[in-house]
Amino acid sequence: MKRMKGVVITGPGKLEISDNCPLPDKIVPTGALIKPLIWSPCTSDAHLCATGCSSLPYLIGKAVGHEMCGVITEIGNDVHDFKVGDRVIVCSVMPIWRSLEAQDGHANNRQDNMYAGIDYPDRGGSFVESYYIRDADMNLAKIPEDVTLEQAVMIPDMMCTAFEGMRQLGTGFGESIAVIGIGPVGLMVIRAAVLSGAGRVFGIGSRKICFDVAREYGATDLIDYHEKDYGKKIIALNCGPVDGVVIAGGGDDSLEIALSIVKRGGTVVNLSAHFSNDPFKFSSSVFGFGYGGKTIKGIGCGGGRLWMSRMAALVENKRVDPSLLITHRFHGMESIPEAMELFLNHDRSLIKPVIYND
Amino acid sequence: MKRMKGVVITGPGKLEISDNCPLPDKIVPTGALIKPLIWSPCTSDAHLCATGCSSLPYLIGKAVGHEMCGVITEIGNDVHDFKVGDRVIVCSVMPIWRSLEAQDGHANNRQDNMYAGIDYPDRGGSFVESYYIRDADMNLAKIPEDVTLEQAVMIPDMMCTAFEGMRQLGTGFGESIAVIGIGPVGLMVIRAAVLSGAGRVFGIGSRKICFDVAREYGATDLIDYHEKDYGKKIIALNCGPVDGVVIAGGGDDSLEIALSIVKRGGTVVNLSAHFSNDPFKFSSSVFGFGYGGKTIKGIGCGGGRLWMSRMAALVENKRVDPSLLITHRFHGMESIPEAMELFLNHDRSLIKPVIYND
Amino acid sequence: MKRMKGVVITGPGKLEISDNCPLPDKIVPTGALIKPLIWSPCTSDAHLCATGCSSLPYLIGKAVGHEMCGVITEIGNDVHDFKVGDRVIVCSVMPIWRSLEAQDGHANNRQDNMYAGIDYPDRGGSFVESYYIRDADMNLAKIPEDVTLEQAVMIPDMMCTAFEGMRQLGTGFGESIAVIGIGPVGLMVIRAAVLSGAGRVFGIGSRKICFDVAREYGATDLIDYHEKDYGKKIIALNCGPVDGVVIAGGGDDSLEIALSIVKRGGTVVNLSAHFSNDPFKFSSSVFGFGYGGKTIKGIGCGGGRLWMSRMAALVENKRVDPSLLITHRFHGMESIPEAMELFLNHDRSLIKPVIYND
Amino acid sequence: MKRMKGVVITGPGKLEISDNCPLPDKIVPTGALIKPLIWSPCTSDAHLCATGCSSLPYLIGKAVGHEMCGVITEIGNDVHDFKVGDRVIVCSVMPIWRSLEAQDGHANNRQDNMYAGIDYPDRGGSFVESYYIRDADMNLAKIPEDVTLEQAVMIPDMMCTAFEGMRQLGTGFGESIAVIGIGPVGLMVIRAAVLSGAGRVFGIGSRKICFDVAREYGATDLIDYHEKDYGKKIIALNCGPVDGVVIAGGGDDSLEIALSIVKRGGTVVNLSAHFSNDPFKFSSSVFGFGYGGKTIKGIGCGGGRLWMSRMAALVENKRVDPSLLITHRFHGMESIPEAMELFLNHDRSLIKPVIYND
Repeated sequence: MKRMKGVVITGPGKLEISDNCPLPDKIVPTGALIKPLIWSPCTSDAHLCATGCSSLPYLIGKAVGHEMCGVITEIGNDVHDFKVGDRVIVCSVMPIWRSLEAQDGHANNRQDNMYAGIDYPDRGGSFVESYYIRDADMNLAKIPEDVTLEQAVMIPDMMCTAFEGMRQLGTGFGESIAVIGIGPVGLMVIRAAVLSGAGRVFGIGSRKICFDVAREYGATDLIDYHEKDYGKKIIALNCGPVDGVVIAGGGDDSLEIALSIVKRGGTVVNLSAHFSNDPFKFSSSVFGFGYGGKTIKGIGCGGGRLWMSRMAALVENKRVDPSLLITHRFHGMESIPEAMELFLNHDRSLIKPVIYND
Repeated sequence: MKRMKGVVITGPGKLEISDNCPLPDKIVPTGALIKPLIWSPCTSDAHLCATGCSSLPYLIGKAVGHEMCGVITEIGNDVHDFKVGDRVIVCSVMPIWRSLEAQDGHANNRQDNMYAGIDYPDRGGSFVESYYIRDADMNLAKIPEDVTLEQAVMIPDMMCTAFEGMRQLGTGFGESIAVIGIGPVGLMVIRAAVLSGAGRVFGIGSRKICFDVAREYGATDLIDYHEKDYGKKIIALNCGPVDGVVIAGGGDDSLEIALSIVKRGGTVVNLSAHFSNDPFKFSSSVFGFGYGGKTIKGIGCGGGRLWMSRMAALVENKRVDPSLLITHRFHGMESIPEAMELFLNHDRSLIKPVIYND
Repeated sequence: MKRMKGVVITGPGKLEISDNCPLPDKIVPTGALIKPLIWSPCTSDAHLCATGCSSLPYLIGKAVGHEMCGVITEIGNDVHDFKVGDRVIVCSVMPIWRSLEAQDGHANNRQDNMYAGIDYPDRGGSFVESYYIRDADMNLAKIPEDVTLEQAVMIPDMMCTAFEGMRQLGTGFGESIAVIGIGPVGLMVIRAAVLSGAGRVFGIGSRKICFDVAREYGATDLIDYHEKDYGKKIIALNCGPVDGVVIAGGGDDSLEIALSIVKRGGTVVNLSAHFSNDPFKFSSSVFGFGYGGKTIKGIGCGGGRLWMSRMAALVENKRVDPSLLITHRFHGMESIPEAMELFLNHDRSLIKPVIYND
Repeated sequence: MKRMKGVVITGPGKLEISDNCPLPDKIVPTGALIKPLIWSPCTSDAHLCATGCSSLPYLIGKAVGHEMCGVITEIGNDVHDFKVGDRVIVCSVMPIWRSLEAQDGHANNRQDNMYAGIDYPDRGGSFVESYYIRDADMNLAKIPEDVTLEQAVMIPDMMCTAFEGMRQLGTGFGESIAVIGIGPVGLMVIRAAVLSGAGRVFGIGSRKICFDVAREYGATDLIDYHEKDYGKKIIALNCGPVDGVVIAGGGDDSLEIALSIVKRGGTVVNLSAHFSNDPFKFSSSVFGFGYGGKTIKGIGCGGGRLWMSRMAALVENKRVDPSLLITHRFHGMESIPEAMELFLNHDRSLIKPVIYND
């Protein structure tokens, strides 16, 4: 096993550049090595860092990161559709496509990623010099010529998660949507809502910088969640409950409020990771006493080459410009801890940072 | 307003035959009057009675009941498909078909029933001498010739709820289903599961009488919920999580257990009314930390003539015999309180009682 | 029965202003009378006119037209949500919402419109002085304040048909769509494709004026169908078959070509009326020899208040500007025959005409 | 390349036992070799034989057959869930699960089977001594203990096709279904219809032996297609159009009749291979003039381990006994040509033959 540089978590709040990240000597025939060109840290990386991986202790000492685009430097013999030198988007969730879960339409439920690391003890995240991926044909996508690196690196998680959430919400043309929490994923949900034909779109957040992007992406109503009874305000503005709600942040009461503002027969999609020991809960009345026709879905990032390619097609065809999310730009792996500080400090000027590997 | 006999709740645990139930002097042109031939009380009637309508206080003093079949005695001029003398199944939930909710595919969410009584102060339930219905063409269904009254009266709620639950669960051929709570609705869910192509069907209950019907309806595995860790037992027997779960009773932990045994990507349908002040809750881990691909739906009884006709078609074509649910038979409106006592006493020999109006 | 002015077909190619169109003396309690403010003739009106109603002979001598917005001048006692003076969009297909078809999710399949006129011999189209509608609450929609009459009159058929077609196509984010025939409906399909998240959108037509609007609406590739083997060109440009196809015109070979360019597993939605005596046909190979996973749907205009309201919400929230379709403007009922001439003459400068009733 | 015995087509109507079928010297790490225990010829094998592979000429000289169960005799190093000695159902269509088609939910559209043989020139069908499969974990399924070989060999095509057809039809509880053509696939569709909750089920055929199994499987009405206007008879019996139709045989007019008896808004699933040079065709009126809400799907056999396992679960849990289809039993590979003669002679006593490899 070779060794290389990577960004590892060593304890609560402690992120370091290590020289000791493992790199397999030999890749499998379907695999590839990718040299990163651009990275973006995610809130979940920040959460892992802040808590010292308390929820996933086996990640201690491993490389973090799952939002990355790069260039292929080595390729297995059984890879058909990629070659050395291709610039690619790297899947964040790495579904295992030869699995019963995939045959069942839920490929995401078996993954070969840093989090599923128990089965793959050598694997860490992609904030490394060279990233090893086992199934290039299935979990990479080419960056189209007209798509910038900054746009591309917003695809593996920000777009793949937000659009998957809207896909699962399943609302139709002219329907009204509320998005609770408009950090980077929530903002992208707003664009996904517009691109699934939503009429009125409520963005619920608190920061002007986010409201500005929300408006740009097509939100029609911007609501501050510090406002008391903001749920009632939304119902009043909308002249009735909304057709669908996506939770992409917000406070502990997000689910309660989401259910209180969605119509009977409507769906709430939750995209927020919930690592606390507190249970999910909501009052019986907002759930129609158990039989009100409401649906709650807990949804994660969509994965695989096809889904990423479709996201890239949206960017390439000018349906969305995900680079609007990027507020901070850094250079060099060494600056990743600094970028992460923005998250740890809850910097109010931050939506998403990127780090160029140069 | 004429007056007639009916079974009314007058306080906690108090059910009386009243002579003072209102009957409109005149029916609307789309309406009908139905003389009951057979009734069946429901757990929810029993709940209203036991609590003195604490959750729905405007029902105090009104007739109860929503499971009834009868014969049409008067018919409005604008009714096209029914005539005096027709034997009919009467819808329990009475959707309002001229509504935006119906146009949105959620007709059930606007109802003209006893529970939606604030808008229709004259209306009570169907445990009366003559039942007034406003939209005969849309909310009655003829009893096919080969279908008995006992079978027919299991349609408006038992079948219409159970099959709606399975319809919403949406599992496919050969999939495995668990049904938590096998009272009359849960038993019918088992049959609905078989008739939606389920392979293995787990029935979770506690009474032999119910287990016997469950087996008859096609359950493959019968589980006692007093058994500690029965969820783990199901996973072991099934060699993995089940594909779908329907909750039709059980204890306070039903939702927690349901989520713990359903596969990622699977759905839990709740059919149980939840009138307590306690919130719904479940731990984060069984919901995949918020992004595990699991879905929770709170579903009520399906309504309308078409749905009832389709249920009747299942009975007529021998796909299901709902009369297997009936354990007790009574005669005359006066015996309704006695039938209700069975519920209030949690009689272990009871699945469903019926009362012939003779 | 009162008499009023209206535009009637009297023979092949003959359109006249008649003084003898019937107007009921009395409206039903759920009904309304609407005074038109703006009309728009449709290709299907032109077809009826050109052929002298050969396909629907009972329409001879009756008023034509089904795209109209107006103001309510009289209202029934049982109408809850509209009042005299409201400016409304009038449904073109008039589903009957109290029907088993509606309960089955196919409300459109029972209609109370001019075409279903055998059952309703008094009814004609809406190119009249005063239009009678039987179910105002269900089949009218208010024109939002920010929506112009020109935009509004594009809703009842152009938007309601095009968006219904895309709804039925059911493609997802980033998928590629081809629209064969980009007259007014096809152009609106292009916008609907963009608003359902399409990536690449091929518009297949022949006129520059249509190509210009197509581009404005978000088409990425404009293809002339006079080009030999344009299907092969699309597959080449798209690097493979497209994910979905909508037929909204084109020649006799539209279905053959549509099937030849759609992926296995993909769907072709046909929105074109096909009144000729020739059968539909396509070669076995383009349909995967009968088992290639391809789907063909024949879809009509979506109807009802909710669907129209959702279309209006799209306009109000600036998701689409349907007035881009309008190329010709007239004033007064007397000019309707002149507007229709544009269709009959296949005027190449025409997309849609409107006629103000002033 | 080793050589082994197999049943090959050498010309129109000519089936021979060859000693020259290729067997790879070495299997891929995910592959397996299976020794057949039981075979069943299919109508499509018979068609290939009768026509001398005129539609698929590259199959001349290759082994036929795709319905087989056997025992694993050799297994690759990367196979996780199977071992030598396992008795398995072998997938007939062999989807390639690492493909964009699979990611798109249409795995069947890229196959590694005898028909996709151009890419895999060594491959033939499974009527051989030893069958080589490249992806054991994804395209084999264990035969459950309580399932007989005769039942099991009806799974790879008869059940996998019929249930896929009903899955794609998508009708619900109590709906009415017509099955045109009740050979072995059509009969299984009848059972699949019952197991998807159909009420009335019409079986359209001509042979008593098939009618008997149809009744056993739950058909309620048996119709002879020699009867003139049998479509009208079905509509009369059903008191209106049926909710869904599956075509699994019948004459050239099957599609025309299917469309004429299905409701507006309903679907026709075609499962019949159509190798003639005649186009598919149907009159405009039965398709609602192009906008009647009707859907036509051309569907093939569902593939993969999960789907086969679910079929096996239906058998194991006594939902269906597919061995009712078997009318003729043979022993030894040498008897396969004799079994095929039954098809070629249109033997009226035949539903399905099986051949034990002993």
